[in-house]
Amino acid sequence: MKFFDDIRVGEVSNLGRHMFTAEDIKSFAARFDPQRFHVDEAEAARSHFGRLCASGWHTACVWMRLLIDFRRREDEELRARGEAVAQLGPSPGFRNLEWSKPVYVGDTVSYTTEVIEMRPLASRPGWGIIFVRNSGVNQHGEPVISFISSAFVERREREPQIP
Amino acid sequence: MKFFDDIRVGEVSNLGRHMFTAEDIKSFAARFDPQRFHVDEAEAARSHFGRLCASGWHTACVWMRLLIDFRRREDEELRARGEAVAQLGPSPGFRNLEWSKPVYVGDTVSYTTEVIEMRPLASRPGWGIIFVRNSGVNQHGEPVISFISSAFVERREREPQIP
Repeated sequence: MKFFDDIRVGEVSNLGRHMFTAEDIKSFAARFDPQRFHVDEAEAARSHFGRLCASGWHTACVWMRLLIDFRRREDEELRARGEAVAQLGPSPGFRNLEWSKPVYVGDTVSYTTEVIEMRPLASRPGWGIIFVRNSGVNQHGEPVISFISSAFVERREREPQIP
Repeated sequence: MKFFDDIRVGEVSNLGRHMFTAEDIKSFAARFDPQRFHVDEAEAARSHFGRLCASGWHTACVWMRLLIDFRRREDEELRARGEAVAQLGPSPGFRNLEWSKPVYVGDTVSYTTEVIEMRPLASRPGWGIIFVRNSGVNQHGEPVISFISSAFVERREREPQIP
């Protein structure tokens, strides 16, 4: 993770993409969201979705995984350049999650994240909070998921001030 | 699912509870959130959490599973009484998700859901939308997760009006 001080509002990162296979959709749903249109092709065909589609939570969890992988690559690049890597605190939560279209079997979703707001934390010296808009778009360019998340990010050590 | 017309604002449902084991936490995190404090006890001990804890997404996905199980029991009870079961449409999303405390290994989270708002949908005759506040509380009574979700719920057929 970059330091708070090196992040700018408007920055967009491409997190990568994921193809939702039938096996992938069904194994997630069997554990967490066993509704008929997420676990069985024939039942899905008879449902209002018309086809097997992923649990909305699955679409969100894939975002989380791609974000972790993205941050690892970013950290490796920083270390390769001999730069320090910032600590990331826990996420306080999310707002306004929208599942705007179903993710059908065989769909490939591309995820991006955009910094929309940031501020230093008066209550936690050495830390700032960033707000990012996360989006997933299918292979037809149609948005399937979007939400706003926040995270605590470490600030750079301040240089001692010359008195 | 009960019909929209049989649901009331203020209704609280106990969805049940879930104990987060180390195996459970690590298997979810290995797939979706492989941060060191979610996948390895020793690394977690050295992190700001101090102990292995569940991915916030895991805590949310367990809510989804318990909700599905709760609705199945509710549907079985309705059918056992010879009553009709309402259809449930897709969820448009959620808002204001807060992870207020970590869920540590061995914690048991109890989930409830409370109807906070509902209205018939002018744009979709025969359907209404309900908003519910979902909460998870650990064995010490401390809130660990809360969010507001919405769902489309079928209305009862209207009796034909006598002209």
